[in-house]
Amino acid sequence: MSETITPVENAMQPEDTPELRALYRGFDEQHLIPLWTQLDDLMPQTPQPKALPWVWRWSALQPLAERAGDLVPVGRGGERRAIGLANPGMGGRAYISPTLWAAIQQLGPRETAPEHRHSQNAFRFVTSGEGVWTVVNGDPVRMSRGDFLLTPGWHFHGHHNETDESMTWIDGLDIPFAYQMDSGFFEFGSERVTDEATPNYSRSERLWAHPGLLPLAGLRRTVSSPIGAYRWEHTDAALTDQLLLENEGMPATVGPGHAAVRFANPTTGGDVMPTIRAQFHRLREGASTPVRQEVGSNVYQVFDGTGRVLLGDTEHTVEHGDIFVVPSWCRFRLQAETRLDLFHFSDTPIFEGLGLYREFEEETDR
Amino acid sequence: MSETITPVENAMQPEDTPELRALYRGFDEQHLIPLWTQLDDLMPQTPQPKALPWVWRWSALQPLAERAGDLVPVGRGGERRAIGLANPGMGGRAYISPTLWAAIQQLGPRETAPEHRHSQNAFRFVTSGEGVWTVVNGDPVRMSRGDFLLTPGWHFHGHHNETDESMTWIDGLDIPFAYQMDSGFFEFGSERVTDEATPNYSRSERLWAHPGLLPLAGLRRTVSSPIGAYRWEHTDAALTDQLLLENEGMPATVGPGHAAVRFANPTTGGDVMPTIRAQFHRLREGASTPVRQEVGSNVYQVFDGTGRVLLGDTEHTVEHGDIFVVPSWCRFRLQAETRLDLFHFSDTPIFEGLGLYREFEEETDR
Amino acid sequence: MSETITPVENAMQPEDTPELRALYRGFDEQHLIPLWTQLDDLMPQTPQPKALPWVWRWSALQPLAERAGDLVPVGRGGERRAIGLANPGMGGRAYISPTLWAAIQQLGPRETAPEHRHSQNAFRFVTSGEGVWTVVNGDPVRMSRGDFLLTPGWHFHGHHNETDESMTWIDGLDIPFAYQMDSGFFEFGSERVTDEATPNYSRSERLWAHPGLLPLAGLRRTVSSPIGAYRWEHTDAALTDQLLLENEGMPATVGPGHAAVRFANPTTGGDVMPTIRAQFHRLREGASTPVRQEVGSNVYQVFDGTGRVLLGDTEHTVEHGDIFVVPSWCRFRLQAETRLDLFHFSDTPIFEGLGLYREFEEETDR
Amino acid sequence: MSETITPVENAMQPEDTPELRALYRGFDEQHLIPLWTQLDDLMPQTPQPKALPWVWRWSALQPLAERAGDLVPVGRGGERRAIGLANPGMGGRAYISPTLWAAIQQLGPRETAPEHRHSQNAFRFVTSGEGVWTVVNGDPVRMSRGDFLLTPGWHFHGHHNETDESMTWIDGLDIPFAYQMDSGFFEFGSERVTDEATPNYSRSERLWAHPGLLPLAGLRRTVSSPIGAYRWEHTDAALTDQLLLENEGMPATVGPGHAAVRFANPTTGGDVMPTIRAQFHRLREGASTPVRQEVGSNVYQVFDGTGRVLLGDTEHTVEHGDIFVVPSWCRFRLQAETRLDLFHFSDTPIFEGLGLYREFEEETDR
Repeated sequence: MSETITPVENAMQPEDTPELRALYRGFDEQHLIPLWTQLDDLMPQTPQPKALPWVWRWSALQPLAERAGDLVPVGRGGERRAIGLANPGMGGRAYISPTLWAAIQQLGPRETAPEHRHSQNAFRFVTSGEGVWTVVNGDPVRMSRGDFLLTPGWHFHGHHNETDESMTWIDGLDIPFAYQMDSGFFEFGSERVTDEATPNYSRSERLWAHPGLLPLAGLRRTVSSPIGAYRWEHTDAALTDQLLLENEGMPATVGPGHAAVRFANPTTGGDVMPTIRAQFHRLREGASTPVRQEVGSNVYQVFDGTGRVLLGDTEHTVEHGDIFVVPSWCRFRLQAETRLDLFHFSDTPIFEGLGLYREFEEETDR
Repeated sequence: MSETITPVENAMQPEDTPELRALYRGFDEQHLIPLWTQLDDLMPQTPQPKALPWVWRWSALQPLAERAGDLVPVGRGGERRAIGLANPGMGGRAYISPTLWAAIQQLGPRETAPEHRHSQNAFRFVTSGEGVWTVVNGDPVRMSRGDFLLTPGWHFHGHHNETDESMTWIDGLDIPFAYQMDSGFFEFGSERVTDEATPNYSRSERLWAHPGLLPLAGLRRTVSSPIGAYRWEHTDAALTDQLLLENEGMPATVGPGHAAVRFANPTTGGDVMPTIRAQFHRLREGASTPVRQEVGSNVYQVFDGTGRVLLGDTEHTVEHGDIFVVPSWCRFRLQAETRLDLFHFSDTPIFEGLGLYREFEEETDR
Repeated sequence: MSETITPVENAMQPEDTPELRALYRGFDEQHLIPLWTQLDDLMPQTPQPKALPWVWRWSALQPLAERAGDLVPVGRGGERRAIGLANPGMGGRAYISPTLWAAIQQLGPRETAPEHRHSQNAFRFVTSGEGVWTVVNGDPVRMSRGDFLLTPGWHFHGHHNETDESMTWIDGLDIPFAYQMDSGFFEFGSERVTDEATPNYSRSERLWAHPGLLPLAGLRRTVSSPIGAYRWEHTDAALTDQLLLENEGMPATVGPGHAAVRFANPTTGGDVMPTIRAQFHRLREGASTPVRQEVGSNVYQVFDGTGRVLLGDTEHTVEHGDIFVVPSWCRFRLQAETRLDLFHFSDTPIFEGLGLYREFEEETDR
Repeated sequence: MSETITPVENAMQPEDTPELRALYRGFDEQHLIPLWTQLDDLMPQTPQPKALPWVWRWSALQPLAERAGDLVPVGRGGERRAIGLANPGMGGRAYISPTLWAAIQQLGPRETAPEHRHSQNAFRFVTSGEGVWTVVNGDPVRMSRGDFLLTPGWHFHGHHNETDESMTWIDGLDIPFAYQMDSGFFEFGSERVTDEATPNYSRSERLWAHPGLLPLAGLRRTVSSPIGAYRWEHTDAALTDQLLLENEGMPATVGPGHAAVRFANPTTGGDVMPTIRAQFHRLREGASTPVRQEVGSNVYQVFDGTGRVLLGDTEHTVEHGDIFVVPSWCRFRLQAETRLDLFHFSDTPIFEGLGLYREFEEETDR
């Protein structure tokens, strides 16, 4: 037949004749491939992601990141001591899903990761530790346990560790999406961070992180949130309040015992960045979510507590720092053994904006 | 000629003949009025508001409100002990401008203003004092000095004073706009407030007033802000930060020495209510704004400090509690003698939404 | 008591004492009016428009307009030979409703109405006749029977009659709204129209009036439609198609036998102008609409056929050219005696944009 | 080292030691890949698409499609006799770019392609010929030369040829995007088309394809255009008018001698489908465009005339039916030898909606 044309099983195929072979050679020569040899794989009845549901263990990740700190320099060229979580289904790319990148990043005592910028959107979530400042467009942002920090596309950023301890955190980006879409631009910046100050609060927070208040200076709708850091103290307080309100009989939670907040762009009420949604969940001890399937990739990191997660038909026990990915349309359920706190990010805004989002919730006997 | 047709001065008018008089009688009989008798007044070259620039003095308002507390009951029928600021140009209506209502409201010790709801949008700003809770759709909201509180259209609301002291505050509504537009609906509610609890923070704040965070439960874009109270502690902190950032050389202020925040709807990044914008300004001692004109009605109340305000061609000295209105296209400038804090509201969202907003800034020698 | 304070009947009023009179004098001196003396009128339970439902007869309007053509010059100063329909409830202003202006305009043989512009939005609807070109920002637009023509705010426009016959048409504007809101700007332009050509199609139509197609040159979302003329041939064809589709069993009509189109801004899919909605209705012989009430002012002109219209509790028979206004929340129903064509405009976009729109449909035995 | 980690050239790499090898083995075991081994490829300084700029010749495509008509059946299973244009850089997939699918589809005399639906958005452009009706959600749509036809996501559709001649046309879809994003759903429908009528105009056109007019029945903003067919007569007229207007001195064209229209969704003014933009260009004889680069994939088919196209650094001569693709950020210029008409589609809406669009225009001596 042809090298590039592999008939699929359940498609009706023409009879193999010399004439057909000649036709297929013609196709090859002209860089043509007929649909009838591709259909099953190309257009499945429901999404059949190559990405697998998968769990990475913090107990394995963290020591490897620390060890990398001993052996691998950080600086111009490598840029970051970031170790990507490579979904076993993604063919050897450091992709946690076809759209998302997740990595553990380590910065040793007194080290600096030089400044650069790229059109890819990025965030950091601090699983534990403190002592590093990330400098975003010249604004130093403290990184502390539980904080969620933004580096929207084309913002210069570098990191520097002001302490004698190393620090690790989680990076999330839309690298695979930008790579696939050929939309990536990259530029090197300063070798050192452009402002070595170590303030408790970034300028972006002082301008933008007051509840319900927007500064008049330069106020306009921006594609990404202008808030550089969403502090754990606020996230924790919001989740605590939701569960207390539920106790008081108010409809403050997503489901019974399930508090959740979305990190938002205060200039639009929308997502923090155009390609990435970020949320935080807290489940009471014993609480669980319904079994759901949704279009798009969802990644979770356990921040505190222990629980079980259903991925497809397999249940996994997870604890502090464990990271798991839920590929598109994969069955998913959370169950809290203790009080369970999870950081969560996804590519949902892409699908919602293009009218491609779908979800399905299984009926349960709750 | 005719009773309803009054020729205007600079319009070219037809010769007064018996035939013209017969024509004009015909117009009258058929309920017609020709444009050429109306043009100047109807379609001026720039806005010629009937509303006058005006200043009300707190030193006069507050004692009258207290005296009303002695003489006038509050309860079903009168509904509120609210005393409207009646712009002298508005022909005897309690309108501070053609679109806006501003009033001083007083509530005596242990009194209750009964619940009702209306399509008109309302807010309260607490010039001073404390001790009253306003209950908005069943959610008790503490009212304290410097707080800005919302009662969006069609939300039930009543007030009750939990103390042995009377309290006064400022109400702002779009009553004249709704009246003129024939869009007002009104419904009586409970004689007493539906929840007599006196929590420090309303449920709306506990759900919605965390910086940059939105609750997932029931999250959607709403016409008005879901935040019931914008607390002075946050407003003050945001303004303080802007001036500190200006000290550090950042472009954090509207103009030199002029910090300002907008109260916002966190689900959209837009205004708190569809017809009313609310903002807060702080000018450093000696700072001033450029002379500006803009379409729409702007109302200010001095919260703290003293300053001078230019309204048209006249300058007024203002101090704590004084309220002034800047009619459409009226020249306006603020100058701070001491540090000057002002609460500010306007009907600007109406004009922006309809493409009718314009502004003009005079060149100055700053 | 006081000159400006008139207690309303059903509000609970304080006892009339010397102290109260002193208080009310204090209010007067300080330009204050208490809410409890105003409530009923100000904040009714449902809209109580001053505007009355009213019908103007074309058989009376048209001869008066022609007669004005004999007696009243057109030119700079008077600007237009436009005769406004003055709602008897609006206190002697040429307002058909609190927001809308409707007028019959006449232009004699070879006459020119000079150019000017204003921030008020305007349209023309051609009840009958032809021969005039309106020149909008330099673009000559033919005016013919059944056409709907736009002059959005701040577009220069003048009219000239190229024939030896006079012509009349209907103007619609948001003059009362702009007047009340103090948002009006006006500027005189050329004494003659700036382009005396008489093309069949305006440049705006040649660029923008191709179905589903937008020109790439300068393409952006605009506040008002860039189409200068919506031609009767298209309106008629669209309505004809809807009724044919209904015959074929398709859900193409608003209700049984009731075809309707909205004139739209092709750059947004929204209304033609931000303050004015324009639509065209066709009812089959014998068809009728349900009885409805809605917030806002609606104006109709019968274009063809005869029918009956319910306004409040009164039914009126209407025919070609008759114009009627449905004030806010007034009961309204259309019934077609013959096939009935109606042009329709309203201020609905203002209310929809501000979250103030409401409607109510009575149950019927259709 | 490791199987999956391939150090890139210009990234600073750690010294190869036994310890490093142990670390890399740890990475492998834990499904981790460090960023410093991936950077160059993953995050290039400008987009480095795998897709190549490429030209397919109609003179080769069309006979192959006809020959497939002789040898390959159409029907359930294969579904369509569609032959995909396989970009030589895309690794043997029938992708014209990483996001877009383009195919030539053939339907023989009296044949039917059975109904199905999928979440992938699809359109057809008729390069030449006639005689087939595509039935979209039960609405038969005539396909004739120059027409642009929509099948938005999840609309059932089948095709049937009513003549004794075969017909070919071009299909465009977002199959690669849906495949990569795992957002595809597919469902089989009727074996035959559900309505075998052959009307000149579809119901969708009769409801929606009147210039500037929207039907009131069921009017709402929809994700995709409700117009099933954009007819050549309108496209041609719009382009003709733009060039005539340019002759008259009006700014009606994108550039000198370059007319262009966008196929639009009349309910929003936006693109016809959320992932695909479709446009049509006409260049006068001798006209050319500037050299431009833009993010995203653009595909053109010459509809009429001959010209030259610059793709990267290579110029190609193109004529009727030739199809070429411009990968992301590839240099591109059109030059018309005769009057040149081109159909054009792209994935631009994806990038614009996510804030990822960029373009660059080289300075020229025009």
